[in-house]
Amino acid sequence: MGIAREPLIFHPGPKLVYRQENETRTVLGINGMRIGAQAVAVMAGPCAVEDLFQMRAIAAAIKPLGISILRGGAYKPRTSPYSFQGLGRPGLEILAQVRTEYDLLVVTEVMSPEDVPLVAAHADILQVGSRNMQNFPLLRAVGATDKPVLLKRGMMSTLEEFMNSAEYILLEGNSRVMLCERGIRTFEPSTRNTFDINAIPFLQRVSHLPVIADPSHGTGRRDLVGPVAKAAIAAGADGLLIEVHPWPDRAQSDGQQSISPDELEQLMNDLRAVATAVGREL
Amino acid sequence: MGIAREPLIFHPGPKLVYRQENETRTVLGINGMRIGAQAVAVMAGPCAVEDLFQMRAIAAAIKPLGISILRGGAYKPRTSPYSFQGLGRPGLEILAQVRTEYDLLVVTEVMSPEDVPLVAAHADILQVGSRNMQNFPLLRAVGATDKPVLLKRGMMSTLEEFMNSAEYILLEGNSRVMLCERGIRTFEPSTRNTFDINAIPFLQRVSHLPVIADPSHGTGRRDLVGPVAKAAIAAGADGLLIEVHPWPDRAQSDGQQSISPDELEQLMNDLRAVATAVGREL
Amino acid sequence: MGIAREPLIFHPGPKLVYRQENETRTVLGINGMRIGAQAVAVMAGPCAVEDLFQMRAIAAAIKPLGISILRGGAYKPRTSPYSFQGLGRPGLEILAQVRTEYDLLVVTEVMSPEDVPLVAAHADILQVGSRNMQNFPLLRAVGATDKPVLLKRGMMSTLEEFMNSAEYILLEGNSRVMLCERGIRTFEPSTRNTFDINAIPFLQRVSHLPVIADPSHGTGRRDLVGPVAKAAIAAGADGLLIEVHPWPDRAQSDGQQSISPDELEQLMNDLRAVATAVGREL
Amino acid sequence: MGIAREPLIFHPGPKLVYRQENETRTVLGINGMRIGAQAVAVMAGPCAVEDLFQMRAIAAAIKPLGISILRGGAYKPRTSPYSFQGLGRPGLEILAQVRTEYDLLVVTEVMSPEDVPLVAAHADILQVGSRNMQNFPLLRAVGATDKPVLLKRGMMSTLEEFMNSAEYILLEGNSRVMLCERGIRTFEPSTRNTFDINAIPFLQRVSHLPVIADPSHGTGRRDLVGPVAKAAIAAGADGLLIEVHPWPDRAQSDGQQSISPDELEQLMNDLRAVATAVGREL
Repeated sequence: MGIAREPLIFHPGPKLVYRQENETRTVLGINGMRIGAQAVAVMAGPCAVEDLFQMRAIAAAIKPLGISILRGGAYKPRTSPYSFQGLGRPGLEILAQVRTEYDLLVVTEVMSPEDVPLVAAHADILQVGSRNMQNFPLLRAVGATDKPVLLKRGMMSTLEEFMNSAEYILLEGNSRVMLCERGIRTFEPSTRNTFDINAIPFLQRVSHLPVIADPSHGTGRRDLVGPVAKAAIAAGADGLLIEVHPWPDRAQSDGQQSISPDELEQLMNDLRAVATAVGREL
Repeated sequence: MGIAREPLIFHPGPKLVYRQENETRTVLGINGMRIGAQAVAVMAGPCAVEDLFQMRAIAAAIKPLGISILRGGAYKPRTSPYSFQGLGRPGLEILAQVRTEYDLLVVTEVMSPEDVPLVAAHADILQVGSRNMQNFPLLRAVGATDKPVLLKRGMMSTLEEFMNSAEYILLEGNSRVMLCERGIRTFEPSTRNTFDINAIPFLQRVSHLPVIADPSHGTGRRDLVGPVAKAAIAAGADGLLIEVHPWPDRAQSDGQQSISPDELEQLMNDLRAVATAVGREL
Repeated sequence: MGIAREPLIFHPGPKLVYRQENETRTVLGINGMRIGAQAVAVMAGPCAVEDLFQMRAIAAAIKPLGISILRGGAYKPRTSPYSFQGLGRPGLEILAQVRTEYDLLVVTEVMSPEDVPLVAAHADILQVGSRNMQNFPLLRAVGATDKPVLLKRGMMSTLEEFMNSAEYILLEGNSRVMLCERGIRTFEPSTRNTFDINAIPFLQRVSHLPVIADPSHGTGRRDLVGPVAKAAIAAGADGLLIEVHPWPDRAQSDGQQSISPDELEQLMNDLRAVATAVGREL
Repeated sequence: MGIAREPLIFHPGPKLVYRQENETRTVLGINGMRIGAQAVAVMAGPCAVEDLFQMRAIAAAIKPLGISILRGGAYKPRTSPYSFQGLGRPGLEILAQVRTEYDLLVVTEVMSPEDVPLVAAHADILQVGSRNMQNFPLLRAVGATDKPVLLKRGMMSTLEEFMNSAEYILLEGNSRVMLCERGIRTFEPSTRNTFDINAIPFLQRVSHLPVIADPSHGTGRRDLVGPVAKAAIAAGADGLLIEVHPWPDRAQSDGQQSISPDELEQLMNDLRAVATAVGREL
């Protein structure tokens, strides 16, 4: 009679992703940067690459703040087929050009296994988005590259499922994976998603991989990005992914959750203080 | 100040999927079968194709019950990389052989755009699974074929998002799309998913496409499949997708939600009575 | 290291509520009516008692349809203190008067332990609402009466918690309890709640108590009440709770989910056919 | 046709709770303490009052840490009627005795309107628990006292509903209300609840009332309490409610989320650093 439920632990479980007793946490090296070490990494940029002018403006704004990873989407997974779908290949070329001009690392999303080589040729970090967290052919494809991967948690995925998806990548031989908490879907309508702050220390206990926080998608509201970014660092996050746009109100997507370069500058100061308080640096 | 939320309606909205005032609902023709008409369609078979012996056993069992669509997965999206991933191409060949031997239609899942031609060559209906409901390159790829598509709702996708995903397919020129409700993820642990019975009449009001119900995934418990299948027909479903296995306790996946051929035979009688009560037939 | 979770089964569990192996399901006798037996019970009426004229209109409408239980709220739990809070005691007196005039049974909500004697003096069935499912002093108070209790599931309560709440009532000596599924809170915004159709057969397996369905709150949309009511009966529900209002568009609360007496008459015919199809009657 | 939803804003809305443009946030005075001002308040103690020995041990442990508010439940709302229900009145007397002996303020839960005078006579702050957030008679009863109220968010309640519940209290004339975020129910099983970090800055923008965080219920895991407590302060919380027990493994309830006095001492140092980093003190 009683009450049944599927077992929560899949067997044998994500064994490459799990952290063994007393095992130290992994530090990823990316072109000289170290993610998961003392310094908290910041990745900033617009939701979508719109044109070269916009991307240069952002690169010029973040570089002096000590931010060395530029984000921006060339391929955009959009709920509606009528929404802006990203520039595609020209967007990648803009990213690559700005990367060279400003000496930045670039993280950008790849949506399909067949696009992996092209994206890998233009970017330093491959992002697998929330909607593709269980796109297993894509996970295998990025796992077969030598590029670091930023894996975003599905908005509907448990932490167990999240770690299993990372396991697909590690199993292909690519162990440079970052786990990114970006908010989950709940009943609460005031915010776009509910940022799962518990996930940060939980993942750090259970897995050895670095954990990144995305307070922009995690809140969906510009005015909450700062407080939640500070919270994420206080909880132990190894990095942040922040949407910034030179003109947020004119952004082609996600403008309501993008902050301006001026707001980012102020935020970086605040974040630095919190990082210091928890024994990290920025 | 107040409380913000993203607009629920995407603009211009899934206009090909929406039903216009007074528009009749669509009837899909598939090799002489008509889905969305008076008769409720039943699709039955195991979660995964395991071998020819198993598939012949199922085909031989469902054919005399008047069921003419056989389901079975050759490509299985699995949370863990260590779970059985399906037979792949040999699984498709088994499906195609049984299709010919028993004169059945076959529905099977395709997980990647590059597999679409191969799967389309072996099956009558292409299934896009829950985890791929927002795999937009895949939606475009099945939209470019002339095969009917069974699109399963994401386990944490709103009905608005579901219809937008269908819009991607229709926009490529393929209008033979069935919307499949298969349970959503909620806080309730007693059942694997919460079957969203409201979705059936809601989708039928808002969209002209046929609506299929999957009580097997919608409950995750063999003992609840029957009552929920009856409920789905009473609520107006145009078809059912039911997991049946000759030996449920030995199934390689989802055995706990599979019923036996004997149970299916009994269920078909019960379903027929309910269908008649709501002015349909089986 | 692994992943922890609170045990799902509380010990020793709701032992009075659980159904033992081979135990028959309970039939509640209420003034000659039998709930949980062959006949499906229908309880109908407005969300709130507004005045004598309205309640007489409803009573006159439902009586000829063979409906013998009238619902209506005198005490209304409302999210906002500025919303109509119900007539209170005068509302109870209207209910009692109409009960006598039309020879109907009355079910109405009680919100506070101190109101239990007053409500019990005017009604035949005490309703404990969703927001009070875990108001334990109230559960004990209704458990100490000799009145049948309609216990509504909390909108975000698990079935295990629901049964434990019923256990509080039975433990006080009152075993005439009906479990009412009325929809749960999920991420889906198209409907007010997600009616959990799985809960009906699940509760009937695990518990011996009758299970009632409330498709009005379960959908929140007038146009979905009929299909979901039919679904609930097909799934095995022992009764229905339906909001009906003589003038739904002028209702003081929940008008958007109330049907008219004419719609109810049509629905009763539809429900009768479904009940017959599953071996019940109406 | 389209997609309907109940309006998110209730009219006229919780006008006493909303913060007007340019309005400063409220500082509550409680016996000389000021909540909502520069200093972050910490309230600590066991889930349940067990005996005088236990409560003296806790009082003796927290007092030297600069913590001046002791928590402890005499009335415990428990899912199962077979779980420990609290000591009741003798528990209140223990609290009152320890309050005097150690010169601490006491916060404790009240579950029923009729218990309000008794609890108010023994405590400095009345707690309304999550399960009672929409127990409107109880809200009115605590609103009619002159005691400050700690209102916990329902585990299933939106922030809009939360503020409306506070409005019930303010409307009775009691404006000393603290809003306590304590985690919400989601699909994620790894943690007991999902702490909604977004709620802290959101409530502070929309309302003028102080916001308290409960990382113990918000995580349900002892090992996550510290990181989430730090996160809450970084996000701007005006206070913390922390479960501490002299012997967590022997606690009569919630032991798995209680920390020890030694852990609390270490945590207080960590929290002080974070408070300073965000311009507060502890």
